[in-house]
Amino acid sequence: MTLPATKLKMDVLSPVQLLAHREQFPALGHNYYFNFGGQGPLPQPALDEMVRAYQYLQRVGPFSSQANGWVSDQVENTRQAMAAELLVPPETLSLTESVSGGGNIALWGCNWQPGDRLLLSDCEHPTVMAIGRQLGHRFGVQVDICPILAPLREGTLVATLAAQVQPQTRVVAFSHVLWNTGEVLPVQQIAAACRVANPNLLIVVDAAQSVGMLPPSLGSLEVDAYAFTGHKWWCGPDGLGGLYIPPASLDQFEPTYLGWRSGPTDAQGRPTRWYPDGRRFEVATSAFPLGVGLQRALKLHGALLSPQDRYERIKMLAQQLWDRLQSIPGVNCLLPCAPDSGLVSFQLEGVDHFQFVHQLEDQGFLLRLIKFPNCIRACVHYLTLESEIEALYQQIQANLC
Amino acid sequence: MTLPATKLKMDVLSPVQLLAHREQFPALGHNYYFNFGGQGPLPQPALDEMVRAYQYLQRVGPFSSQANGWVSDQVENTRQAMAAELLVPPETLSLTESVSGGGNIALWGCNWQPGDRLLLSDCEHPTVMAIGRQLGHRFGVQVDICPILAPLREGTLVATLAAQVQPQTRVVAFSHVLWNTGEVLPVQQIAAACRVANPNLLIVVDAAQSVGMLPPSLGSLEVDAYAFTGHKWWCGPDGLGGLYIPPASLDQFEPTYLGWRSGPTDAQGRPTRWYPDGRRFEVATSAFPLGVGLQRALKLHGALLSPQDRYERIKMLAQQLWDRLQSIPGVNCLLPCAPDSGLVSFQLEGVDHFQFVHQLEDQGFLLRLIKFPNCIRACVHYLTLESEIEALYQQIQANLC
Repeated sequence: MTLPATKLKMDVLSPVQLLAHREQFPALGHNYYFNFGGQGPLPQPALDEMVRAYQYLQRVGPFSSQANGWVSDQVENTRQAMAAELLVPPETLSLTESVSGGGNIALWGCNWQPGDRLLLSDCEHPTVMAIGRQLGHRFGVQVDICPILAPLREGTLVATLAAQVQPQTRVVAFSHVLWNTGEVLPVQQIAAACRVANPNLLIVVDAAQSVGMLPPSLGSLEVDAYAFTGHKWWCGPDGLGGLYIPPASLDQFEPTYLGWRSGPTDAQGRPTRWYPDGRRFEVATSAFPLGVGLQRALKLHGALLSPQDRYERIKMLAQQLWDRLQSIPGVNCLLPCAPDSGLVSFQLEGVDHFQFVHQLEDQGFLLRLIKFPNCIRACVHYLTLESEIEALYQQIQANLC
Repeated sequence: MTLPATKLKMDVLSPVQLLAHREQFPALGHNYYFNFGGQGPLPQPALDEMVRAYQYLQRVGPFSSQANGWVSDQVENTRQAMAAELLVPPETLSLTESVSGGGNIALWGCNWQPGDRLLLSDCEHPTVMAIGRQLGHRFGVQVDICPILAPLREGTLVATLAAQVQPQTRVVAFSHVLWNTGEVLPVQQIAAACRVANPNLLIVVDAAQSVGMLPPSLGSLEVDAYAFTGHKWWCGPDGLGGLYIPPASLDQFEPTYLGWRSGPTDAQGRPTRWYPDGRRFEVATSAFPLGVGLQRALKLHGALLSPQDRYERIKMLAQQLWDRLQSIPGVNCLLPCAPDSGLVSFQLEGVDHFQFVHQLEDQGFLLRLIKFPNCIRACVHYLTLESEIEALYQQIQANLC
């Protein structure tokens, strides 16, 4: 059940509770923080937990059976914490270094044949574009890039994407939430329409901006791969993300990079087969203490608000920000109404966006520039205060005078 | 110039200096540490530096231009610190997550064609074996595995490996220091002999056990790729390693996994081309604070002893350990004389190695089991004390009575 925004604001979360909660995020005390889509602020308890992990490992001795046991336990605990958040079975998840790491695993994991086609939206992150080009070079894959900004505006997105699907299309890759405009794409509808056009294709989703912001919905999205990161909306440490592949799609992807974490060895230490689950895509030694940091961050969010309530608050704040921005002469929000996400992008008439972002940063407001479409992006999290949005509004107004 | 071991022991390093130096490594105060080949102990100043980095990034705001500037500076500082240690130009290095990460980049980076062959030694890490098998599956590569333990004993290693090279052999992959027996392989001679048999092949080296233990020699090894990690002999944090590819070999490898760190974007944010150096193999967001931890660890080693002096001390300690082990009835060192490395492996007559390693661990001695050949491995670092070796010797003797 979705609570109305104003009701949520008063009933579910008091300002005092939120202010106390924010105290745990040092970054929020130093700046007006609007870069959640770039990186979330790391909670102090998460850093403390990581430091304790480093200290523990030195105390028992790295590579001792106690340390190695701790490492495998923590890898599984991290997987379980992510799974609990996404409402999926833990064995459908692989831990990765970043969202790009997961995207590479999925896109390189298809056993591409010459003449196969990869369909992308033109709003994908440069990483996905770069991977597509290299798949073209290595395997003779043809990359089709579908412009989606106009179809989105005109309400024809699903049909437009599906119309680009060809018999040779092996994979359709797009974002759940567009990193540039903040639009939430109808993943399930796109997947269904594309599969009508070609039942054998795989749906690979960039979830960089959706995981930790949208309430969990993987049970109904019907995707084949969903790559995410812990360090943006979840506020975990950088360097830890994940990849979801449902059991029915697992064998559609093969491991590319392999290592001691991908599978067991026999009595002579020779690798036998990959693990029968998401572990097969994990490689080797990582910065294992990061896992406890992410677990701590997730716990902290959950202790304050449910995922649904966090999202409702984000939408309410995005509406407030969109309203305020739109009311300033010379400011044009990219979208005709507030996005269903925490990413609010806007353009300034006759003002250099790059310089404007730097000016705001000097004034303590952290936003970012987006190159395509050329715009400035301000992100609101459930952690954002209404008063911060008002301060940003006033600062932008002042700077434009 | 190589100093004789006894001279080094007295002239270059006093016991008081070494004891004071060891105080910076908490793990060394809790156990008799002989697992350096698995993971090095993390110095406290390195952890402190990492914590300061996390705090700094929260203070200036993640993803601010100040934070992003710090991240790119630190990536380059880390690359330069590694380069200074290896005596190679920084642009020949790529930062990776692990030695396996680097091995995957090199081995997947060859543009394999069906019928190509990959030649491995049978003493390679399971990671390399697993990659080889998957290259066979994906690209039709034939993997040849050359047994090297007998040829090593008989002094015919170079000729034996070179004899396995065929016209279709694209890559020969082997370790600089064998992780199981501790033998140092003559990389340059193997490379030269294999190239006589087939001038076009690439030499890919697993440097997991050589970097940080052997003095730098990349200038003369004539390899095409050399994958290493910071968390073993260099005692950096886990999750950070590197890959060296000399300029002349760079275009023999193509990036597989790609991301925003692999290359620049144009004015519209579209990826253009890969960087003209080792950065092309780097992908996306990593745990960036690890870099300052590794830099601090490297500085700390260098402040005490030169790489050559560290290696001389390691060899001297390996000799002491080998002598002691060999003198115990029922203990057989794998090698007929002390290795030229810090890895001393041995077998016990009629004793279960697995149980014996656990017994030692309960007694505060950290060693590890190796499955092939079935043995126990004890590692000595320059940080190891002569008295620790004596204590291990006495404990093994006592446990065998």
